[in-house]
Parts: sequence; C-alpha cells; structure tokens
Amino acid sequence: MAIASNNQDPPLADGLGPYCRRLGERARCAARQLRDVPTSVKNAWLLRSADHLLRRIDGILEANARDVAQGAELGLTSAAIDRLMLNPDRIGGIATGLRSIASLPDPVGEILGGGVRPNGLQIRKVRVPLGVLFFIYESRPNVTVDAAAIAIKSGNAILLRGGKESLRSSSALVSVLEEAARESGLPEHAIQFVETPDRNVVGELLQLDECIDLVIPRGGESLIRRVVAEAKMPVLKHYHGNCHVYVDEYADLAVALRIVVNAKTQRMGVCNAAESLLVHRSVSKAFLPKAAEALQSRGIELRGDPQVLEWIDGVVPATDADWSTEYLGPILSIRIVDSLDEAIDHIQRYGSHHTDAIVTRDISRAEQFSRQVDSAAVMINCSTRFHDGGELGLGAEIGISTDKLHARGPCGLQELTTYKYIVTGEGHVRES
Amino acid sequence: MAIASNNQDPPLADGLGPYCRRLGERARCAARQLRDVPTSVKNAWLLRSADHLLRRIDGILEANARDVAQGAELGLTSAAIDRLMLNPDRIGGIATGLRSIASLPDPVGEILGGGVRPNGLQIRKVRVPLGVLFFIYESRPNVTVDAAAIAIKSGNAILLRGGKESLRSSSALVSVLEEAARESGLPEHAIQFVETPDRNVVGELLQLDECIDLVIPRGGESLIRRVVAEAKMPVLKHYHGNCHVYVDEYADLAVALRIVVNAKTQRMGVCNAAESLLVHRSVSKAFLPKAAEALQSRGIELRGDPQVLEWIDGVVPATDADWSTEYLGPILSIRIVDSLDEAIDHIQRYGSHHTDAIVTRDISRAEQFSRQVDSAAVMINCSTRFHDGGELGLGAEIGISTDKLHARGPCGLQELTTYKYIVTGEGHVRES
Repeated sequence: MAIASNNQDPPLADGLGPYCRRLGERARCAARQLRDVPTSVKNAWLLRSADHLLRRIDGILEANARDVAQGAELGLTSAAIDRLMLNPDRIGGIATGLRSIASLPDPVGEILGGGVRPNGLQIRKVRVPLGVLFFIYESRPNVTVDAAAIAIKSGNAILLRGGKESLRSSSALVSVLEEAARESGLPEHAIQFVETPDRNVVGELLQLDECIDLVIPRGGESLIRRVVAEAKMPVLKHYHGNCHVYVDEYADLAVALRIVVNAKTQRMGVCNAAESLLVHRSVSKAFLPKAAEALQSRGIELRGDPQVLEWIDGVVPATDADWSTEYLGPILSIRIVDSLDEAIDHIQRYGSHHTDAIVTRDISRAEQFSRQVDSAAVMINCSTRFHDGGELGLGAEIGISTDKLHARGPCGLQELTTYKYIVTGEGHVRES
Repeated sequence: MAIASNNQDPPLADGLGPYCRRLGERARCAARQLRDVPTSVKNAWLLRSADHLLRRIDGILEANARDVAQGAELGLTSAAIDRLMLNPDRIGGIATGLRSIASLPDPVGEILGGGVRPNGLQIRKVRVPLGVLFFIYESRPNVTVDAAAIAIKSGNAILLRGGKESLRSSSALVSVLEEAARESGLPEHAIQFVETPDRNVVGELLQLDECIDLVIPRGGESLIRRVVAEAKMPVLKHYHGNCHVYVDEYADLAVALRIVVNAKTQRMGVCNAAESLLVHRSVSKAFLPKAAEALQSRGIELRGDPQVLEWIDGVVPATDADWSTEYLGPILSIRIVDSLDEAIDHIQRYGSHHTDAIVTRDISRAEQFSRQVDSAAVMINCSTRFHDGGELGLGAEIGISTDKLHARGPCGLQELTTYKYIVTGEGHVRES
C-alpha cells in the first residue's frame, strides 16, 4: 500500500501523539526513499493520477456533493461554497495541472555550481529535495492534488491537512493519487492525508521538527500567524500584499490608466492587486480625473489626500491607516507625491514588500525604482497582477513567499529544494 | 561621520529601547542607501581599511593588550586568551582577508534567471542584498572586521555585537573601519558597533524585526539557542557537527587511514572534525588495529562496540549516547557495520546532517552514499575537514549553516543575499 493506511489503521487508536509521530516517521522514511526515485517514476505517477482523476470523476463529484451539501447546512458563504465545489471542468483543470507538472524539468540533481579546486578536490553543489513538507490548507479541494504533485515532483514527501469542509472531496482525491502511487512505484507513505477531525493534530505535528523540514500554511493570515507561533520548524510564509502603482511624471498616461485599472479591478481579493495609487504632482491634474472616472465607474471607492479630494468628487479622506491597509476589495487609496524619492519613501514606509509598480518612460527613473524598492517583485510599465508563478514562468507554484530568506515571491519546484555539497578527492587530507 | 556615533552620543541617554530603535532605524536607512553603492566604492573601503589597519597597528595592539590583561585578571582560560589576542601577524592576516574580499566578485546585481514570456513581458530574477544583518559573536576581535567586510561587500548594513572581553580591541578595529568608510564614501551607519555593556541590548535588538533582516550568532550552542528562542527575525544557525567517516568494504585502506587520522586529529575543536568511525565488517579486522594504533598514538581515546573492544586494547565501551555526541576533543567512537545501508542508517539516526565521509573505490557505493546521506556536505575519499568556505571555493565565509532552508553549509557573500523579480512590460495588463 502506497499511502498512509488511515482507513484500515484507525488514526487515534493509540492517541494523538503516537499517531502524529507515526505520520512523521513514515514521511521521513518515504523522503529518504524519494531521493532515489528517478524522474520517470515521478512523471509516470503524475500522468497516471491525471488519467485516474478523469476516470473516477463520478465518485469524486459524489463525495464533493456531500461536502457541498454539508457546507450549505453549516451556513458557508456562497463564496466559500464556490471554492469548495468541484465540477467536470475543474477536475479537468486539476488533471491538466498534473500533466503540466509532469512536463516541467525535475529540479533534483541540478548542478548549481562547483569546479576543481587548486588541490584537485572536485566540488559539486547539487540541488536536492528538502525532505518532508507539511501542507496545511483551507477549503479548496484542488489544493490537495496541486500540493501533492509539486511536492513529489520536487522529491519531497508530504503531509496534507485540508479543511474539514472539504474532507470527503480531499479523501476521494487522495485515494486516486494513492492508487496511481501504488501502480507507479512511488515509496509508501510519500503522500499522507491527515484525516482525523481532532484539531489538535496540527499543533502536535508542528512540534515534530526532527520529522518535518518545512510547513506551508495556505489560507488566511490568522492561520499563518498561528502556524508561525507554534511551529518548531521553518514556515513558508505567504502573507498579503499592500501593493502600489506609482505614476511617474514621465509616464505615458494612457498606459498608466490601463495599468491602474487592471491592477485594482481585474481581480480584487488577491495579494497582487493594487491597494494604493501614487501620482507625481506634475501629471496629477491631467491623470487623476480620468483615472477616478474609470475606477469609480467600476464601483471602486477612492480615498485620497486633501489635494485629491479637492479635484475629484466623491473621494473619502484617507487616514494614515489607509496607506497601510490591504483592502482586498473595491477601495483604492490615492496620494500625490512631489518626487520619485517621495514615492519610494512612501512605499518603503507603508508597503508590504510584495509587489510595486512604476509607470514611466524614463529609464533612469525605472532603474532607480527597481533598485530602491525592496519588494519581491518590481513591475515596470506592467500590472502588479503579473506577480504570479505562472506569469513569471515558474510553471507551477505552491504560494508566494513574503519572506526574504530561502524563497522570495512565487514558490515553485526549485523553492521546495535545498542543496548539498558533494566533495570528491583521492585521499585528500587537510594540512592547515 | 560614517558610523554610529556612540562616543559623542551616549548610547543610553534616553534608555535602552530608544537606543536600540535608533540603531535599527539607522541601519535600515543605511541599507537602503547601500543598494545604490557601486562595487568600486565597497572595494575601495575594503582596501583602505586594510591599509589603515596596518598603519594603526600600534594603537590596535595597545587596546588589545588592555583586553588581554583584563581577561587574565578575570581568569579566562589560556585558550580564551589566545582567541582574544592580536599580534602583528594576526592583524596582517585580517588585512589580507580584507584584500581578498575586495578581489571577490560582487554578488549584488547578478542575474539569476529570467527571459521573455510569450506575452513579451521581460523577467529578470536579480540578486540583491538582504538588508540589515545583526552579528553577535564572542571573543575573537578579528571577527569584527571579517563580519563587517562580508556584510558590506554583499551590500548589507551590519550591527556588530562583540563579546565584552574584546570590547577595547573591537572598538579600535571599528574606528579604523569607520575612518576608511568616511574616506571612501560608504553610507553613514552602514557599520554600527553596539557598545553598551548592558546585556539586555541583545534581547531588545532581537525584537526589531522591522529593522533587522537576519541575525547571525557565532559562538557556543547556548548563545545560538538563546538567540533562536528570542529572535523575531530569521536566524542563521551554526550548530555543531557530529561528523562520520565510513570505511567501506571497497576502501583503499591506506587512504582510509590517512583520512580518518586527518578528520579526527588535524584540528579537534571544530565542527567538521570527525566524531565517529564506521567500518564495514569485511575490512574491519584488517583496518581497525592499524587505525587504532595511529589514533591512540596521537592521544585519541577510542570508544567502540563489543567487537571493537574484543580486537583492540584500551577501548572503552561505547554507549548509545556516544553515537550522538560531538566530542570536539580527543575521543572517537567506532562501530562495525554489516553493510553500506547500515552505515547510512546509523548516520541518519545519530548524525547532525553536517559533514559525512565515505572511503571507497566503488563508484556505485560512493553515489549511493552521496545521494542518501542527507548532510550539508558529503565527502568522497577526502577528509571531513574540507567542509569550509575557503576550501570549497567561496572565498570568504561568515559561518557554516546547519539549516536546510536559505543557506546550507558555508555562508559566504551569496548566502547574505536574496533576490527580487524585476518585470518590464510595455503597458501589459493581465486578462485572466
């Protein structure tokens, strides 16, 4: 049997602590075996999982319908029900995702550097898997498959803890992955679904730093903060973005308008949507009325500094708190600045180092902005919405890191790896 | 004035909290300016500092003599006094170190990846400084200069907190760096020495995660554990190594003997010295008596499993605790194993994932060991002692990371950087 036998082996027969330790140790053991699994086996599992998903679509939809019915009874919002719901299109999308991960290069084994030292020692710095990932997510059942796929392709074992709302859907999906794993020869326990309803299981697992190398919480900020507070191992943090668009005095104003509207309105509940607009004073009178009209006509509430209030009708005064707020909705704060330096200062003071854009035709302005704005992604003459693993060419992503260490910005296959040095001599010993 | 004006500006005039916040904010501001400082200015500072060190050697030695005299009064061990002591040779070595860092390539601005997306967006993944480093170290005053040099060359501002035993020496060294900084045009406060004797200053600074990007404690394990427990920002951990040498059944036994003796005895108090010897049963009878003789004649105490005890005189029985112990001194534990798999199991169970070596002539054994042993460095037919930034070709190192995330193994200039994405469009907006 390729995957944790939660069905035959009642999770909590001997208590939560031993159950969690067993999960952790099985994952650690699987991770060790995964280091020897060739790319062809990992890809075979991905493709077979995609096939089985489509073949077993009826059973998956049936399990999902029960989750959805229960969600409605529990009073989930319609947005939450929508996130939970699967349909043939969405399952097709999940299968396509698996196939596209199969087509990506395997990061494991890549030589990152090295050479021959003057004494003849051969140095290779080689990319290797991290080991064991613990993935905690909320209701979207497709994340079960995406996360497992990215983990296995990058050579890592994974523990999956999904939201209770999607338990039946996730179980049905995992059983498909499990079947494909058995058939493809993946190590047993490479993918384990943490099935107990006991909420303390997360806290217990977060203590097992000898078994788990990295925790990835995907969900609201409160989930992430709780995980950071409790985890004894590193956490890949995926906080939100307070993203800015700065319209420079040398901006093409038609381009600026298109970018501001897109960055604010194309999708509002996401971390790379714009929350603040900064406009250079010299173009503000020409730009702001048009921008305000375009935004207000799309239902965006504007909050501005006194000058903006004077020029534009229907603008609410912005408070200091507005400059720091990630609205994740139809509100935009607007400030007029006297210089590029002032714009950069504002972004450094109030921003979240996530994604910030400049619109300018001046190359030295663009260079200064991209050098001095300390954000994971700096956009020049394009929308903040492009800060995304797919758009940047990573192929697949498990989240956007707001950390500076290890991984910054979108986390794909490479970001779930580390490296080791392999040093080969011919009896070399050190003299000094 | 280029560096924190601790002399003119009494550190604690307005209390510890405001003092620490001022240090942090000055460093943050300097870090922002450092992002614009060209390589030539950083190198000019390094070379000028080297010149000034040699020019002002008498003053430095005088300050150091007072530290040494006080250390003797306080009853420091002779090893501690030796670590504290400077002499013209050692200062010459520090100056040489500065010049060699000047000659290394600047990591900042390196393009790590990118290209043009199908929609025409240009993606650059660019190496950038981390920002502000907080370096906490114990008595060696040379670390003051080494750490500042590596920080500035990689574009980071640095807060330095040295041990109280070396306060006068470190101050004298910092004033040299300060003079060179003024002359070379480094940003003010790029290097700040935390001079107050108040021990609470470290705890206060460890709370300032909005000002400090990374803490690097260099010293004993208790210092590192304290910093990890208190710090709100990431910590580069540099724990010790429980390193193994495995002598395979296909080893060249003369090579194995040379490597074991070197790995254990060439320098014993360091993290990459060997602490355990594993020997394949089929060569143990031929190898162990010679190895024991060579080691015992060098004063090494051997602790072994029952078979080793039977064959070799003067061996102490090894307990389970011995397999996990990093002796950092003249003791070696020895175990006979029946297979390569058993050796790898032992290393995975008892090792510290730091540095482990195999001696073998068999290529598939070497490959299996290097793939399955999950350590920062795996040595094939060479001594564990080569796991070191200089030996691996990094040029300069600030420590050896025992973490898997961000940096693993020796940390040089690159490991003190992160990256950002710079995305350039021509008015690109996102459609879906």
